[in-house]
Amino acid sequence: MQVWNDYQSENKDRFLNELLDLLRIPSVSARTEHKDDMVTCAEAVKARLLEAGADKVEIYPTEGHPLVYGEKIIDPTKPTVLVYGHYDVQPADPLELWNSGPFDPLIKDGKIYARGSCDDKGQFYMHVKALETMVKTNTLTTNIKFCIEGEEEVGSPNLGKFVKTHKELLKADVILISDTAMISLDTPSIDIGVRGLSYIEVEVTGPNRDLHSGVYGGAVANPITILAKMIASLHDENNHITIPGFYDDVAISTEEERKLMAMAPFDAKEYADDLGVKELWGEKGFSTNERTGIRPTLELNGIWGGYTGEGAKTVLPSKAFAKISARLVPNQGSDKITEILINHLQKIAPPYVTVKATLHHGGEPYMTPIDSKGYKAAAKAMETTFSKTPIPVRGGGSIPICALFEKELGLKIVFMGFGLDSDNLHSPNEKFNIENFYKGIETIPHFHKYFAEMS
Amino acid sequence: MQVWNDYQSENKDRFLNELLDLLRIPSVSARTEHKDDMVTCAEAVKARLLEAGADKVEIYPTEGHPLVYGEKIIDPTKPTVLVYGHYDVQPADPLELWNSGPFDPLIKDGKIYARGSCDDKGQFYMHVKALETMVKTNTLTTNIKFCIEGEEEVGSPNLGKFVKTHKELLKADVILISDTAMISLDTPSIDIGVRGLSYIEVEVTGPNRDLHSGVYGGAVANPITILAKMIASLHDENNHITIPGFYDDVAISTEEERKLMAMAPFDAKEYADDLGVKELWGEKGFSTNERTGIRPTLELNGIWGGYTGEGAKTVLPSKAFAKISARLVPNQGSDKITEILINHLQKIAPPYVTVKATLHHGGEPYMTPIDSKGYKAAAKAMETTFSKTPIPVRGGGSIPICALFEKELGLKIVFMGFGLDSDNLHSPNEKFNIENFYKGIETIPHFHKYFAEMS
Repeated sequence: MQVWNDYQSENKDRFLNELLDLLRIPSVSARTEHKDDMVTCAEAVKARLLEAGADKVEIYPTEGHPLVYGEKIIDPTKPTVLVYGHYDVQPADPLELWNSGPFDPLIKDGKIYARGSCDDKGQFYMHVKALETMVKTNTLTTNIKFCIEGEEEVGSPNLGKFVKTHKELLKADVILISDTAMISLDTPSIDIGVRGLSYIEVEVTGPNRDLHSGVYGGAVANPITILAKMIASLHDENNHITIPGFYDDVAISTEEERKLMAMAPFDAKEYADDLGVKELWGEKGFSTNERTGIRPTLELNGIWGGYTGEGAKTVLPSKAFAKISARLVPNQGSDKITEILINHLQKIAPPYVTVKATLHHGGEPYMTPIDSKGYKAAAKAMETTFSKTPIPVRGGGSIPICALFEKELGLKIVFMGFGLDSDNLHSPNEKFNIENFYKGIETIPHFHKYFAEMS
Repeated sequence: MQVWNDYQSENKDRFLNELLDLLRIPSVSARTEHKDDMVTCAEAVKARLLEAGADKVEIYPTEGHPLVYGEKIIDPTKPTVLVYGHYDVQPADPLELWNSGPFDPLIKDGKIYARGSCDDKGQFYMHVKALETMVKTNTLTTNIKFCIEGEEEVGSPNLGKFVKTHKELLKADVILISDTAMISLDTPSIDIGVRGLSYIEVEVTGPNRDLHSGVYGGAVANPITILAKMIASLHDENNHITIPGFYDDVAISTEEERKLMAMAPFDAKEYADDLGVKELWGEKGFSTNERTGIRPTLELNGIWGGYTGEGAKTVLPSKAFAKISARLVPNQGSDKITEILINHLQKIAPPYVTVKATLHHGGEPYMTPIDSKGYKAAAKAMETTFSKTPIPVRGGGSIPICALFEKELGLKIVFMGFGLDSDNLHSPNEKFNIENFYKGIETIPHFHKYFAEMS
């Protein structure tokens, strides 16, 4: 559509500058000190939606951070696309590893460096600019609803309640989410699955106070040593998870599916080199793509205990802590795995210590049917703008609210992600390629057009 | 000696207040931000020594924190006692576990709560007040030299050079140190051994940057998991250290020595209850006293990596760290064990990670011969003031400079400690019983008297 291309060419610099403004707001949902920034960010999202042509936008307060709902209804009899995204971001630390300020966006070599540039401000904002493109060129063929929340990075604790109590408001025909990656601009792909999550925190308590490691060392269990032994026991020599029941509900992929996955371009040496490791690691019997796609995993996200400052302190600490998360695949259930994890950690705790394990948050795995209308419209849209058929792939990340949306709204979800695995999501120097940002804005209107045509 | 008792009774409140003033100076040697406080503290020590009657006191700068030397020479032909102590203290963190300010001494239930109250300001200050007692009552029978350093808690990196270049200045007949504990005021004891130390830090690097645990989890080694596996492998199921060569030089105690040790009063239930643990832990085949006295140990003093803040962050970190220290017994050598430790950690590192292990500091174990003049004078002094013969015991802590003193100055060392194991050394709420403080001041002059008589 030449009219879209023309409009976008004329306005591309403004599109980019608006995104940069959004990235300057430190909307870190996990940190209470950013509570006001979250409100500021929600208000900015509302303003941008109204400017883009939404005819109703509301900020809904929740028990946590506010949610922004917006809509452009052209005709209630036409199909409706519900766009989900999130304006909250991960904490920026470790700050010392950033080459520029995480909330002071830097453009370098065609990339936008900032926390949230890809996950997810840059990606949901493509939909805002796609809306603007269609409204301003008078070419909208679907109704569009936006549900942009502020708690995705902390497990969406209040979204469930909102969805359950606003089913009519959120009524739609498909849910479209850009919060995943594609292989590359040369090899477009669409995620057809996201993994579930079970994120817990473990506290191991040994003695009731920090002790002198000389006076008491060797006579009382050191909680760091015990925690290390517990963690070490969770993977066997084949890097298979040892927790009884953990794999019980894992859907086994067919040989055909595995053959298809093996066709996606993958260079192990390049992958290892990019990460700076001599050898890759993972569950024996599975390829790297399978390990991050069709297999569940158990990762240590953090560990701490005792003296961690400068120099040396001869302390035998009272407590040691770890943050542990499992990524889940169909048909594992988050609640069940959380229970299995917590019970297992308590069961393997030796009598010298007490172990407290608690849930941070969880989420269910989700699969998009590739014969659904939404998937087909997305594939055709990408075909149009990339001149290549996108490859369906299984993503490693999690979007915990997918299962909730499907259950409560009865809708299928399509993941049309324009990020790259190398975008340093959740890491220092998060980036988003400007070209990918523009490609997303270019592609999205085609999705709406094809989805309307297929309906 | 009635004259000592009278003098001390008249001045006891002042003695205590002077100690409280010293405890208000946050002389944390491990932290660069306390550099000025270290100088302030050294100057305070100098002033107190001069007031107590020392006739020459000098502050010696070092490459690190200054050292205070003082002396009272009454007659060069009389025996000389060299008192060693340290005015530096351990870091106070975790601050949130203190019931009062670590550098705002609180007196409660007959105890002084403050960082350094026992280790070692309160204990070396007993010697300053004992000097004052003898000088002011004109009863000094030995020459006394003081060597009060400011780097004991960071491994005395500059003391060796000072001792080597000031042998004449430090010339003496015995070294007297109060930096250890006794069993209780009812059961006086004297430490006849301190353990050596080898304190290292380990850095495990996996990927070259923090990663999204969903995108990369399961496909690249997590440095926390690997570090945990490495730590877990260091003790076997009998809590015996598995590092090849670690026990090679350990002096095996005789059955007779072990029988004597078993006679020291010890109540395992009381010990466990005090620490708040259900079960004690330790090397199979050894009693608790043996585990902390005659056996070497390996303790985790700190561990950190990944996200350790509030809430959840789904990161697969680039690095994980640990601080690890071994306590050594005769005839283990600190340099040799450090090399064994570092080599072992590098050897067991799997190819998925790189491991960097570095020395923080070390020190040799030391034993006091119980037939030495110094030990006999100390035992007799305690007998006099406690009306009980002190029990010789093996202490678990380390005073790394002992071996250095013996080698360079050719002197035996006597540990006359008045602290208690329950004084929370290196922990929050460090304390020193006022009664123990006064008992030390009462006992020390007797040591000088008996040592002079035996010479």
